[in-house]
Amino acid sequence: MRRGDAINLSNRVRRSPFFEATLAAGAQDFTIYNHMWMPTLYASAEEDYRALTERVTLWDTAAERQVEIRGPGAEDFVRRLTPRNLDRWAIGQCKYLFLCDETGGIINDPVGLKLAEDHIWLSLADGDILHWVKGLALGWGLDLSITEPDVSPLQVQGPRATEVMEAVIGPSIRDLKFFRFMETEIDGAPVVISRTGWSNERGYEIFLRDGRFGNALWGRFMAAGEPLGVAPGAPNQANRIEAGMLSYGADMNCSNTPFEIGLRQFVDLSQEVDFIGKAALAETRDKGPDRLIVGLRIAGEALPSNTTRDPVFFGTEKVGEVTSRAFSARAGANIALAYLRPDLTEPRTRLSVDVGDRHVDATVHSLPFIVTDKRA
Amino acid sequence: MRRGDAINLSNRVRRSPFFEATLAAGAQDFTIYNHMWMPTLYASAEEDYRALTERVTLWDTAAERQVEIRGPGAEDFVRRLTPRNLDRWAIGQCKYLFLCDETGGIINDPVGLKLAEDHIWLSLADGDILHWVKGLALGWGLDLSITEPDVSPLQVQGPRATEVMEAVIGPSIRDLKFFRFMETEIDGAPVVISRTGWSNERGYEIFLRDGRFGNALWGRFMAAGEPLGVAPGAPNQANRIEAGMLSYGADMNCSNTPFEIGLRQFVDLSQEVDFIGKAALAETRDKGPDRLIVGLRIAGEALPSNTTRDPVFFGTEKVGEVTSRAFSARAGANIALAYLRPDLTEPRTRLSVDVGDRHVDATVHSLPFIVTDKRA
Repeated sequence: MRRGDAINLSNRVRRSPFFEATLAAGAQDFTIYNHMWMPTLYASAEEDYRALTERVTLWDTAAERQVEIRGPGAEDFVRRLTPRNLDRWAIGQCKYLFLCDETGGIINDPVGLKLAEDHIWLSLADGDILHWVKGLALGWGLDLSITEPDVSPLQVQGPRATEVMEAVIGPSIRDLKFFRFMETEIDGAPVVISRTGWSNERGYEIFLRDGRFGNALWGRFMAAGEPLGVAPGAPNQANRIEAGMLSYGADMNCSNTPFEIGLRQFVDLSQEVDFIGKAALAETRDKGPDRLIVGLRIAGEALPSNTTRDPVFFGTEKVGEVTSRAFSARAGANIALAYLRPDLTEPRTRLSVDVGDRHVDATVHSLPFIVTDKRA
Repeated sequence: MRRGDAINLSNRVRRSPFFEATLAAGAQDFTIYNHMWMPTLYASAEEDYRALTERVTLWDTAAERQVEIRGPGAEDFVRRLTPRNLDRWAIGQCKYLFLCDETGGIINDPVGLKLAEDHIWLSLADGDILHWVKGLALGWGLDLSITEPDVSPLQVQGPRATEVMEAVIGPSIRDLKFFRFMETEIDGAPVVISRTGWSNERGYEIFLRDGRFGNALWGRFMAAGEPLGVAPGAPNQANRIEAGMLSYGADMNCSNTPFEIGLRQFVDLSQEVDFIGKAALAETRDKGPDRLIVGLRIAGEALPSNTTRDPVFFGTEKVGEVTSRAFSARAGANIALAYLRPDLTEPRTRLSVDVGDRHVDATVHSLPFIVTDKRA
């Protein structure tokens, strides 16, 4: 959906605390994510990509809502929600925590932030996991406070992200390691800042803990980033495919198990915790998955991003489908994420993709497509 | 979001079984509802309104997803999910079943369909209530099958809806009473048909139980309705406000209790069932709500539909806010739904609404604004 007369910003859908600022900054297109408008485009997909990969960008990702779990036993409760072993989860550390239902299907893949033993945020992909978490706690009779707090992330993403953050926070930001967070204030606005984000670049999330400061905080980062060439931005399809980052809804849904999406090493069936889906996942592991997600490098001219799932062929046999596809300027090729039959997932395996009007040659590629210094 | 180059129909969001047919029929604008694209506009809001109120329209409401609850004890389980007393719920009957969380806040307002004692559908507004229902059942250790089945509603809405249905189903459709349903087949497609819908007109929902028949079923209804002037359509803001029908997200959310939205008579605190939110609602009832939803008739020229919540004033004092507003050709006025301080909710109370650039006179109006024969 695009801005102007053509876009119906119905109030059935919530507005982010940064909404007015993003409109003023030229947001042209929005999606709906967790019942909230989220900008997806400013100048153009190509220009937004250049700003993100060459300079630095500021994103309104307030739609990345939190589930806050507070109270004695909060951490033990979260251990029952994910197949991942949380034995070594430090306060101040972020963890990628995929959630499974009782069938082992993935229902969301949040990042968890441990603010204290009894205070955890799950920072969600699109999905009302608040209901899931509250339903389980109610059913189990647990005395926990489970809410969606007034916490709205901004993201600063791009090679110059650390410089922007330093201009706002000071040099201490350089001590913040990948997947760690700190609590502080910016011009009176309470925030949590993490070294995380939805891009393949260096980046930070600024979790604003009081929505009243939204537009002011946006302005503060735009001003601080101005000498560094900051541009308003948004999650970028080409950039996240380069990183091999999956988008919930596009690249996985509740029909996928962690084994299909490369998370085998994070499914700890040996732990004592009886997490949801444990029995089903034990069974699935023994059988082995019948599809695996891989990278594909697709030959030929730049194609527009896909809006349907392209079939993938080995010779004349259909062996999988593309979930996300975009042209990557840095890879110099169309790149994609696709599910394939497990026996065909070796890098350089030769396949073809039906892009709608023709078949195009493709080869399996290891993930990520592009290695950056985001973790450094 | 509008069709054409300007609309990004990303495959992060699901497509309905009727998607191709609605594009071919000229769908110009979509929203995202239950993670699925849902058409919202064809010709124009005014022309779509005329087709709906004067003739008949066909809607793709596949995004109205079902939660299917199957197994012994299914009905007893559903009784714990809603404050409404279900003692007299017959097989073949639809019930408006608002769901509350433990605080008494409304988290969705589905219509329930009782297919059998052990087989119930909750036909949802926008929200992943599947997670809530599954979480509770898991937590309570209940052995129920809880899924989102392959069930996708079409709606036939408008004064000539019964004629269209008769052309497809035969004269037996005339025996189907308001809020009742039947099971049958159309050209081999298994369907449930109910006398319900999201409009203020006579109407039916056709719950297609096998998505492969989607585009064919759409075509069947368009062909049968052609002599009756059928047009493709969608939920219409002016029409639903005329009916006093609330839209979850716009007119209520989890901060609202049933008492605030006129459902007092459906909150049965005297029943034995210990439904979720019972204690909280007992407390709220004793205190009385501090706002009530009402109709407002707003003076002056036709205004565009609202995209923000207009403040409502009594003299110079802010006493409430508009949630939904549209110009109704039949009412000959701008009409709205609004929350007001309870002492100001008598019909004909004189207020004003801040519509952005000025204050406009308004009076409280009883709901519905327009009485139709939809229940006859």
